[in-house]
This record gives sequence, C-alpha cells and structure tokens, in this order.
Amino acid sequence: MNNVLIAGTIATDTIETPFGKVDRALGGSATYAAYAASFYTEPSIISIVGEDFSTDFWKTLEDRNINLEGVKKEGKTFHWEGSYEFDMNEAKTLKTELNSLATFKPELPEAYKKAEYLFLANLDPEIQLSIVNQLEKPKLVITDTMNFWIESNKEHVLEVIKKTNIMLLNDGEARQLFDTTSLVKAAKQTLALGPQAVIIKKGEHGALLFTKSHHFNAPGYPLEEIKDPTGCGDTFGGTLIGYLAKTNDHSQENLRKAIMYASTLASFNAEDFSLNKLKSITEKDIEKRYQEFIEIRNF
Amino acid sequence: MNNVLIAGTIATDTIETPFGKVDRALGGSATYAAYAASFYTEPSIISIVGEDFSTDFWKTLEDRNINLEGVKKEGKTFHWEGSYEFDMNEAKTLKTELNSLATFKPELPEAYKKAEYLFLANLDPEIQLSIVNQLEKPKLVITDTMNFWIESNKEHVLEVIKKTNIMLLNDGEARQLFDTTSLVKAAKQTLALGPQAVIIKKGEHGALLFTKSHHFNAPGYPLEEIKDPTGCGDTFGGTLIGYLAKTNDHSQENLRKAIMYASTLASFNAEDFSLNKLKSITEKDIEKRYQEFIEIRNF
Repeated sequence: MNNVLIAGTIATDTIETPFGKVDRALGGSATYAAYAASFYTEPSIISIVGEDFSTDFWKTLEDRNINLEGVKKEGKTFHWEGSYEFDMNEAKTLKTELNSLATFKPELPEAYKKAEYLFLANLDPEIQLSIVNQLEKPKLVITDTMNFWIESNKEHVLEVIKKTNIMLLNDGEARQLFDTTSLVKAAKQTLALGPQAVIIKKGEHGALLFTKSHHFNAPGYPLEEIKDPTGCGDTFGGTLIGYLAKTNDHSQENLRKAIMYASTLASFNAEDFSLNKLKSITEKDIEKRYQEFIEIRNF
Repeated sequence: MNNVLIAGTIATDTIETPFGKVDRALGGSATYAAYAASFYTEPSIISIVGEDFSTDFWKTLEDRNINLEGVKKEGKTFHWEGSYEFDMNEAKTLKTELNSLATFKPELPEAYKKAEYLFLANLDPEIQLSIVNQLEKPKLVITDTMNFWIESNKEHVLEVIKKTNIMLLNDGEARQLFDTTSLVKAAKQTLALGPQAVIIKKGEHGALLFTKSHHFNAPGYPLEEIKDPTGCGDTFGGTLIGYLAKTNDHSQENLRKAIMYASTLASFNAEDFSLNKLKSITEKDIEKRYQEFIEIRNF
C-alpha cells in the first residue's frame, strides 16, 4: 500500500543505563517508529544503512510487514553510543558515528511518492524537507526533531514546521525553540507557524496537545522502573501516524485516542532495551494498558 | 465548629519574580491553606504572629470566617524574602527572619482539640507532631512538608508521616526522602509508613495520587503565565482538607474530586501575588475551571 511513510534513522545503539547495557542493538528513530506503526498499518521506511547491517535486523523489520524498499545500503551503518544517568531524563551521547548517514540524500522510490501519511522522525531538518517535498499529495505530516537540530539548524527546523500538520516537541525543545519557559506560549508560537496541532511530550509527566481551540492533557503511565527510555519519542510518533492512518479520522476526539495509544506503546518501550519490549507485547496488552489509562485519569 | 484545624506559618513575604514584586505581603503556609479551605468550611488556625502583625491582615482572615483564637501574638512576625528565576520552578530564599516562630510552642485552645480534620501545613516536623498529639480524635490528618525539613530533620518527618492519613510531597521531596528517582517507588515507601494515600505534587505537571490499590493522575492547568507560585502547595492542601471536611466522604472517588478542586485553586493562586487572586475568585470561577479540567482530560 505504501500509504504510511516513515523517514528517520536506522542505527546500531550501544546503551548503558543504571539497569543494564546493550551493545550494538537495533535502534534509530525510523526503526522504533516503524515498529510501533506496524501494530496498526504496514509502513514504509525511507532511510539508509551500511553494508554491515545484520540480516537479523533486516528480518526483524520485514517480519512486521515493514516495507524497506526505500532503505539504501552503503558504507557502514550509523552507530550511536549513549548512557543515562540515575535520573534517566536525558541521554548522554558518548559517541556518534554518522557513517553512511553523513552523505544520505533521500530519493523516494516511485511507489513511496503517493504516501498520504508521513512521519518525519528525528533527522536532519534539511533531509526532512527534501522528503516532504517529494510527496505528491500528503494528507497528514507529523514531524519530530531534537535539541541538536534546534541548536545547529533552527532555521530549517522552522521551515519543516511550516510543512507539518502535527508537530511533536518535547518540553525542553519547545522551550528552547521559542525561548520561553511557558509551554502554553511555545505551543501557540508553534501553531502560528501553520500546524493544526502541536504535541508536547513530557516523558513520565505525559503529553500535552494544543490546537487553536482545544487542549488535551495526556497522563503519563506510572512505571515503577524505566529500564531504557531510548526510542520512546519515536515509538510515540510511529504509533500516532499508524493509528491515524488506520482510522483515517483526524478529528480532535480521535487524535486524543491516538495520543493515548502512542503513550501506551511508548510506556511499554521504556520497560526494556532496544525493541525487546515492543517485540513481546500483544494487542491485548496494549488494550489493557489503554484501559488503565482511562481509569487513572477519571474523576 | 472548629472541626477543621490548620497548623502552619503566618508570615509577611517579600517576593520578586520576573513578573513583578511585592513587599511584606500577607503570606505563610497556614494563611494560604486556611484561605483556600474557607471556600468550603470555617477553618481554625494554630500559629503565631508578632505584635507588629497588621490589623488589615488579621481582618483579611477573619472576614473569611477563619478562626484565629489559636494564633498567638508575640515579638515580631515571621518574615520571608525570596525570588524566582525565569523558570519559576523553585524559590530562592534571600532572607528568613524566624522571629516569634523561633520559640513557637503550640498549645491548642480547648475548643481546637476536638477538631476531626487536621492539615499540618509546612512547619517544623516536631511542632507538627506536638499538634497532632494534642488532638483528641482526629479523623483525617493531611501533612505537608518541605525539602528543608527532609534535609535537617528527616527522622521527625518520618514520624509525622506515621501519624498521617494523606501525605503531600512534591516530586523533588518524594525523591529526596527515599533516595530514588522513581516516584512510584517513593509513593510505595510512603504508604508503607502508614498513610492511606500519598499525593505527589508536580507543579505545572499536575499531581499523582497513590493508594495501596489505586492510582490517579491529576492534570495540571495550562496557565500561560505563572506570576507567583508562592503558596500553591499550601492552597492545594487547604482546599483538600476543606473539601473533604465539607463532603465528609473519604472514598477514592471523592478524594479524586478533592484533588481536582485543590488543583483548581492552586492554579488560580499562581496567577497573582500573595492572596490577590484567591481574593478575587468566586464559586462560579472555580466551577468553570473544574469543568475545564474535565474537558482537557477526556479521551
């Protein structure tokens, strides 16, 4: 179908947290996002890996009916090493080997250009722009970014936001982008650039949705232990695009539901390293946690 | 009636935030808490002020039917000076003049001893203990504290928790008290000391309620501008005790409602200095914001 396109990185990650360590595990923003989206749809990825990319990893994605036609193979796979301190709030980058990502010039396969749903996961904003511009008639564009791009290439981050329907920012990024401590003000300024909605992700504190006329406060799930938060934001975005594509309903009401499914999958993802937890959960697990979310916010 | 007793400080506050300044305005934990409680009940205060305490301030409290029989007058009034930086997260104490508070030995008037509802607002934990021990038959004890007491007198903070039905902690205090980053773990450890419930206040991120079998996630109100957060925690606790005393229903369901009214009043309080905003709001304003809270939570 190629109706849902996910642009982002595919990486090997070496990660250490107070709860353990993984070495060269499957990671990257497109990986997490597509895996999450595959619970709802059959997404395609546009990205790049190296010739060294393991066939096991390739199979992990293909087995979920993720279309990898647009994943180029060249040189060495992007590799990231990071660690989390005791408070698990922010990853400390120990090493970044861009490798084949350094020269990545995405060219969409013909079949991809008809995709109506696009998730621009965390990636160089100039590459994000090039991808959205290659789509014939996108119906819904969701965009994520990170502090690194806001610091190094704010101008292009703002350009991508103008092409975006639903912008995702975490609280720190929102404050940084518009130089304000008020998330409400940051949200208003994002909306003024064009998006119909902005979602501010706050980790354990949940997420906030702002549109011009509505506000929704999504609770966080009370996890007793966060083992590895890597990929939670990507999982959130991937679920969002997958759920909205599947339901084909962009109403405020359905967007709230999509956010709660996105929170559900992101909370699962934090419970183990790499894709381990997402690999182990079923639709029933997802429904159960979604119902818990309803219960913990009732009054 | 003297059924609701509030123990805490009465102070004059000099406060500077990025949005303005007040000099020697009415403040203190008991002041905010009793003022908030007075929307639901006629609370009594046990505290101390100086001979210099202004008759206007006295009248401000009496006009709300707050019983001041247990407020001793001696020496000079407790005075606090603080400022908030741009991020408004934590007050920086510039000056603390304990004055008459330094030698405060609370003796409850006879009529106070029959109070069934007690809110131990932020105060020396040894004084909190002395007060709860003077009550004949308390039905519900809600306790607040602050990082200063956890650092300087943790042993007595833990003693007070053992005498408490509903413990209030902010997220930083909860983590500090049990040396964990996990709020879920901190909540469990608080409950293990005896309280039936613990509420973790997270400022703009809302509040979390934990009991042995339930969890509730209370949203924060999306304030565009926080003018002065001083007294928000006290307002929260005061509303809680007032609402629960008025409704005389300690069920999980009603406790959730109480928390949302407490969040409502606390969010109003942040909109202006001292008691200015609480003085200006009506029951209708409160109901309107409470309904907004329902709306921003629905999915």
